[in-house]
Amino acid sequence: MKFWNSTLKGMEEYIPGEQPANIDEYIKLNTNENPFPPSEKVLGTIREAVNAGLRRYPDSLCIRLRQVFAEQNNLSPENVFAGNGSDEIFTLIFRGLIEKDGTAAFPYPSYSLYDTLAQSNAIKYEKIKMESGFNLNLERFLDKKYDMVIIANPNNPTGTFIESGMIRSFLDRFKGLLVVDEAYIDFYGGSAIELTGEYDNLLVTRSFSKSCSLAGLRVGLAVAHRDIIRGLVKIKDSYNVDSLAQAGAAAALLDRKTFEYNINMLRSNKEYLEERLDDLGFERVPSRANFLLARHPQISSEELYLKLKEERILVRHFKEPVISDYVRISVGTMMEIKKLCALISSILEGV
Amino acid sequence: MKFWNSTLKGMEEYIPGEQPANIDEYIKLNTNENPFPPSEKVLGTIREAVNAGLRRYPDSLCIRLRQVFAEQNNLSPENVFAGNGSDEIFTLIFRGLIEKDGTAAFPYPSYSLYDTLAQSNAIKYEKIKMESGFNLNLERFLDKKYDMVIIANPNNPTGTFIESGMIRSFLDRFKGLLVVDEAYIDFYGGSAIELTGEYDNLLVTRSFSKSCSLAGLRVGLAVAHRDIIRGLVKIKDSYNVDSLAQAGAAAALLDRKTFEYNINMLRSNKEYLEERLDDLGFERVPSRANFLLARHPQISSEELYLKLKEERILVRHFKEPVISDYVRISVGTMMEIKKLCALISSILEGV
Repeated sequence: MKFWNSTLKGMEEYIPGEQPANIDEYIKLNTNENPFPPSEKVLGTIREAVNAGLRRYPDSLCIRLRQVFAEQNNLSPENVFAGNGSDEIFTLIFRGLIEKDGTAAFPYPSYSLYDTLAQSNAIKYEKIKMESGFNLNLERFLDKKYDMVIIANPNNPTGTFIESGMIRSFLDRFKGLLVVDEAYIDFYGGSAIELTGEYDNLLVTRSFSKSCSLAGLRVGLAVAHRDIIRGLVKIKDSYNVDSLAQAGAAAALLDRKTFEYNINMLRSNKEYLEERLDDLGFERVPSRANFLLARHPQISSEELYLKLKEERILVRHFKEPVISDYVRISVGTMMEIKKLCALISSILEGV
Repeated sequence: MKFWNSTLKGMEEYIPGEQPANIDEYIKLNTNENPFPPSEKVLGTIREAVNAGLRRYPDSLCIRLRQVFAEQNNLSPENVFAGNGSDEIFTLIFRGLIEKDGTAAFPYPSYSLYDTLAQSNAIKYEKIKMESGFNLNLERFLDKKYDMVIIANPNNPTGTFIESGMIRSFLDRFKGLLVVDEAYIDFYGGSAIELTGEYDNLLVTRSFSKSCSLAGLRVGLAVAHRDIIRGLVKIKDSYNVDSLAQAGAAAALLDRKTFEYNINMLRSNKEYLEERLDDLGFERVPSRANFLLARHPQISSEELYLKLKEERILVRHFKEPVISDYVRISVGTMMEIKKLCALISSILEGV
């Protein structure tokens, strides 16, 4: 490929979950989107921001959004960074916060985007296998002197979670940068954000995509020591978060009532899905996220994935070792869950 | 700064034009935003897209937007890339399309973001001075074997322009990648896009910020050989352009009537500004963009900039050599131009 540099040639492409063109014909439980619509207040605020002011550049520093989040979390805005989705924040971390000859480490299985980003920035990395039952043993990340460790908490695609006490104990001994991806934290709480005041080597990311039903808007946040935030600001594109996304994300933070109502509904639906999967004979991993990783003794996960897809229900099946035994099912609406479970039931009768 | 890597430490920060918090109290002629609001049709389309669908991820490939642009420009969508503003596209070019030991070259003066991005990606670069009258002599870029050359056409901050025949003649002899930044092309035409079909080493970028009055929405496009586009897709973040931005940009392309009406108004205002500046005794650079670079024999440009700012009119003054002699004035509404010129007139009376 002419003009591709060696980094671009050497990287593997990240494959996002399927998004079929005729998406409305599918029940889509494969990319952990929230099944409930965004708050009407948030939509109203965004609509109001769709005005003549769009001719102007957005606030390059996302000041209001950072202020709102900082106030709600007892932080200073100088400890908060806003990105074009937390994806962009991870990209900036790899570009600016680890030397080219440094080494990063992530658990396996985890969010495969970390691998892609390490590759696309020519950073060496190691993957450390989770222990049985997908338990994350942070001690293993102290065996070598890694420059950066990234964990997702709750982890994706397992849904497993570690308490912030374990993160604190790790940080007491770790000298590199620890990045904790909290894209799924809002569903059951337990954030490590408050540790950022004590440890200058902790960076926590958040996303509006899942808990706030705003995947289409692209906003993520990072919380860390102000020197790290200043570095991210320095290396980012000037106007990385558009005006509508800034307005919508701030509004989402302010509408706590809808947020909590949706979180509660989601948790209730998740419990229902868990019970139904148990009834159907699935083995599932305990999850603190809006998805479940599960497998069934009577059918391979690939076959289950394909049979569901034939009937226009999408769940996620990964090709990688260990997790290829499972499907990851996002928690949907009650109707979606019922259709899914009815279909699984009839598939299982046929095998 | 703890955790800043050597690239981050070594780069200079890009300073965007001032955006005061009390922006509505200013006449803002410093960042080349369009003085006219976006088309009502575009705003309506965006408002319609502010719906429950925002809970879903955007189309990661921006298929519809690319199709619309491709159809209008006799291209295939596989030759079109969409980014989070053309800023993101430049970042991706530096990350993926030049080797770490390669050398880039840009004219001077030009858009200083190119310097910043080269630095933030640890790419060596050289700046080649424009000739007298800010004439761009592309021949000078053949003196060494540069891996990449970036020019803005029309150039920013000079507004000067070169015909596509000169670009063709350069491409016939240049082996590296030529990037032509056409952020300001729409005001007077003369695009090099049609050359992308003939030369696989030409990449042309476009922006919706200026001609479409959508700076707040963050959308830019790139046109090039499909292998280059595939490389940009591979290295970009999965969901780099949000759903509202994709919908708004496609709508802006389709509303040709408002687009042309606004372009014509802008040109007419620019002619008026030119006449008034001439009357006031300014020396100005011939411009094919929505801004004018000008200087006055009786007052230093820095002083003029500061005196205008005192009265809440912002124009752009650069600190760098050669252009520090000038101010760059974005073309505003007639009312803004009249206020600006009246104020300049009274400032000149006082010196």
